[in-house]
Amino acid sequence: MRLPLDRHSDIPLYRQIEGFLRQGILSGSFAPETRLPATRTLARDLGLNRLTVETAYAELQADGLIYTRSGSGTYVLPRFQPAPVAHTSSDLAWPRWHHAEMRSVSAPTPDELLAAARQPHPLSLANGTGDPHLFPVKDFHKIMQTVIRRDGIAALEYGDPRGYAPLRRTIAHVLTSQGMAVHPDQILITSGSQQGLALVSQLLLKPGDEVLVETPTYAGALDLFRALNLSIVSVPLDAQGLQIERLEQRLQQRLIKLIYTMPTFQNPTGSCLSTPRRRQLLALADRYNVPILEDDFVGDLRYEGRAQPALKALDPGGHVIYASTFSKMLMPGLRVGFLVATGPIYDRLVNFKRASDLATSNLIQRAVEAYVTIGRYQAHLRRSCQIYRQRRDAMLTSIKRQLPASVQFNPPHGGLFVWLRLPAGLSSSELLPLACEAGVAFAPGRDFFPADSVEDNGLRLNFATQQPADIEEAIKRLGIALRRLR
Amino acid sequence: MRLPLDRHSDIPLYRQIEGFLRQGILSGSFAPETRLPATRTLARDLGLNRLTVETAYAELQADGLIYTRSGSGTYVLPRFQPAPVAHTSSDLAWPRWHHAEMRSVSAPTPDELLAAARQPHPLSLANGTGDPHLFPVKDFHKIMQTVIRRDGIAALEYGDPRGYAPLRRTIAHVLTSQGMAVHPDQILITSGSQQGLALVSQLLLKPGDEVLVETPTYAGALDLFRALNLSIVSVPLDAQGLQIERLEQRLQQRLIKLIYTMPTFQNPTGSCLSTPRRRQLLALADRYNVPILEDDFVGDLRYEGRAQPALKALDPGGHVIYASTFSKMLMPGLRVGFLVATGPIYDRLVNFKRASDLATSNLIQRAVEAYVTIGRYQAHLRRSCQIYRQRRDAMLTSIKRQLPASVQFNPPHGGLFVWLRLPAGLSSSELLPLACEAGVAFAPGRDFFPADSVEDNGLRLNFATQQPADIEEAIKRLGIALRRLR
Repeated sequence: MRLPLDRHSDIPLYRQIEGFLRQGILSGSFAPETRLPATRTLARDLGLNRLTVETAYAELQADGLIYTRSGSGTYVLPRFQPAPVAHTSSDLAWPRWHHAEMRSVSAPTPDELLAAARQPHPLSLANGTGDPHLFPVKDFHKIMQTVIRRDGIAALEYGDPRGYAPLRRTIAHVLTSQGMAVHPDQILITSGSQQGLALVSQLLLKPGDEVLVETPTYAGALDLFRALNLSIVSVPLDAQGLQIERLEQRLQQRLIKLIYTMPTFQNPTGSCLSTPRRRQLLALADRYNVPILEDDFVGDLRYEGRAQPALKALDPGGHVIYASTFSKMLMPGLRVGFLVATGPIYDRLVNFKRASDLATSNLIQRAVEAYVTIGRYQAHLRRSCQIYRQRRDAMLTSIKRQLPASVQFNPPHGGLFVWLRLPAGLSSSELLPLACEAGVAFAPGRDFFPADSVEDNGLRLNFATQQPADIEEAIKRLGIALRRLR
Repeated sequence: MRLPLDRHSDIPLYRQIEGFLRQGILSGSFAPETRLPATRTLARDLGLNRLTVETAYAELQADGLIYTRSGSGTYVLPRFQPAPVAHTSSDLAWPRWHHAEMRSVSAPTPDELLAAARQPHPLSLANGTGDPHLFPVKDFHKIMQTVIRRDGIAALEYGDPRGYAPLRRTIAHVLTSQGMAVHPDQILITSGSQQGLALVSQLLLKPGDEVLVETPTYAGALDLFRALNLSIVSVPLDAQGLQIERLEQRLQQRLIKLIYTMPTFQNPTGSCLSTPRRRQLLALADRYNVPILEDDFVGDLRYEGRAQPALKALDPGGHVIYASTFSKMLMPGLRVGFLVATGPIYDRLVNFKRASDLATSNLIQRAVEAYVTIGRYQAHLRRSCQIYRQRRDAMLTSIKRQLPASVQFNPPHGGLFVWLRLPAGLSSSELLPLACEAGVAFAPGRDFFPADSVEDNGLRLNFATQQPADIEEAIKRLGIALRRLR
């Protein structure tokens, strides 16, 4: 035990020991039933006379904080859970370097608002992922067992910073079978696609640099760019996706260091970038020497219409870094995503990944590799598309039936989201608490805009995570909330 | 399937389809036995006449690249593994933004050199971690099963960005039982301690800022600081650890934004910062408003001598951010570490962690939580200390017996490493290949210094990962290599 003692203090050493243990026990930091070191051991550890330690223990025992089991040792008596610590009270006392511009994270999330509303049957459409219940937990469980039995210690040692080689091969095969020819040595496994976005922006940009986003865009990317103190430049979407003309104006006016885009079934709007614009975008990236970060989080969740190639598939020149994830097929909590990069930037990304966290959990990578085969992937994809299509149709029907025609939307051909636009003057932020009162949550539009260009009349609905009947009920509740808002 | 087709190209569409599939198959990107989409499906996906697709398939089949199983579909014929891609050949063709100052990572590691030497019984002392064989894989396997059965889908969804609450409670209890009173809400779970170091330096420093390190120091931290383009300022260690007087000179001369230190059983030297210096260091951090990042990767692996408190335990004022890991008790590949921070900086770190990768794998966190109890931790710690002490003694004895007296070292009282200093003029980098030839690998000293202050006569030996008999043999081989070097 490494007690902080001050031998030059006026406070006697036995009191210092007693004080440390007392505070730890009362604050709950000392687990109940924790065995304290034997007085002999502690005295030796601290280079003290044993009597000093015994005196301290005696005081604590007299106060009923610890007790002795004869022949077994000294133990902490049970206590309650510790109360949370409050920083804010004494903020001024902390060193100056603690303080900085910081976006508040205190605002409750839609789902927290929904839970607070205490509806008997709350329905959330605020989710950002697919339906976890489509994931066969039992199969994955079996495979996890097999992997630990098969690989033993090897599964628990450091792995290749690029990622487990067989998993990179599988991903290359899956991507190729989806129309993007990729080599395993062009793939970098990341801890979810969020880490992919973080690695790319941290490697290529420094604080103050300008990153261009389409608006509205993924809130998690905006959080990241804010956390990195990047300057966020925005170009609004239209029905064909990112507006190329306005993009080029921006590239002429500003020194853009990165273009972040979701060309296929975009989050939150569900819109797709038209194929001509995809080629124009690549031409601009080439002309202005700007890297493109393509976030293809649900690119192959397509329910109808013509398949569009990923930007990366149209880009032999290495202008695009491609980020994706298995979260839509597997589980978000596994935190396994990947980057695809060609050219020298790949090695720099691997370097940066290793510096950031050495490697992604080897065990999880091996389990994912054992679970994901092309056959399974394609089967799971077919099944997900079938189920999500039905749910999307249920939602579109309900919207037309339950919501006023003044609420606008473009039916998405794939992905997870429908983006609603309220009549001008109505605020989705003001709608949210009313909706949660009525028993439905959604993602308010403001979260998907950078600070300087917030639009508040949009809202994102996830149609993938609820059953058709619940979707209909959820939209009905949304209609009630909307009438209350007006 | 999302094939990249160019409808304005002179190349007929069937040739474009054939070309894509051919390249994918020949490059090995298409997995053997991959089922190609039915011609009807692909034609619909691409908005083409079915005949176009059939023509493309016919060409490929004629070339023996694909085959048809009647009634089942069209499949890719088996191929070899793809050859690795070579970037470097055509580097100049890549966009300019690909290129930047980059430290080469091509040099082979000590273990790669050792493997290349093809010794019948190679012995590596180059490892940076404890002995993985002390880890009870079977128990952990059982607990992983229990957790998946117990928590089901919950274990596979996103978790709290701060980390799984019960795990943070356990860590708080373990730290307190080791002499550092900590509240669960002051703990942030990270993907290994490496991510802890990365989060702190990325949050507090920007490119060009100055970070102060003791030299020699942890190579992984130097890699990180280089990757972040920080300016590295060094202060050499002496027998009592970081030299406080020289540290204060640096703080007066330069604008140091962070002090990175391993006060207890330092990597690579195994030395400890004396308690008076610990208090002086904290006083300086306060006077100069500089945060301290304390890396306590093996703080309680102590084999003798008086226990010294962690800096964090001496620091009520929030000057210290504490980073550690369970890797020495569990397995490196699990990637579970943690930060301890008090004051406003804690919330900023949580924010930055969420922006970086949302959260660390929920499943792994739950498994670690289920495995780690204070009782188990203390038992495992006792056992590890007992075994590692024997191995350290074996190494010190062998060094005295096998190596010339001109090779200097300070016997470490804990940790994993012995640091040898060769007589002036001898280079451990030159010794390494000879040692690997003789069948033993070590970590050469140059890896532990920033570029501007490299010393090449030191070497780090890991005494924790080999049996005593192998340690003796390894040191004998080192002696042979040393005689060859002279």
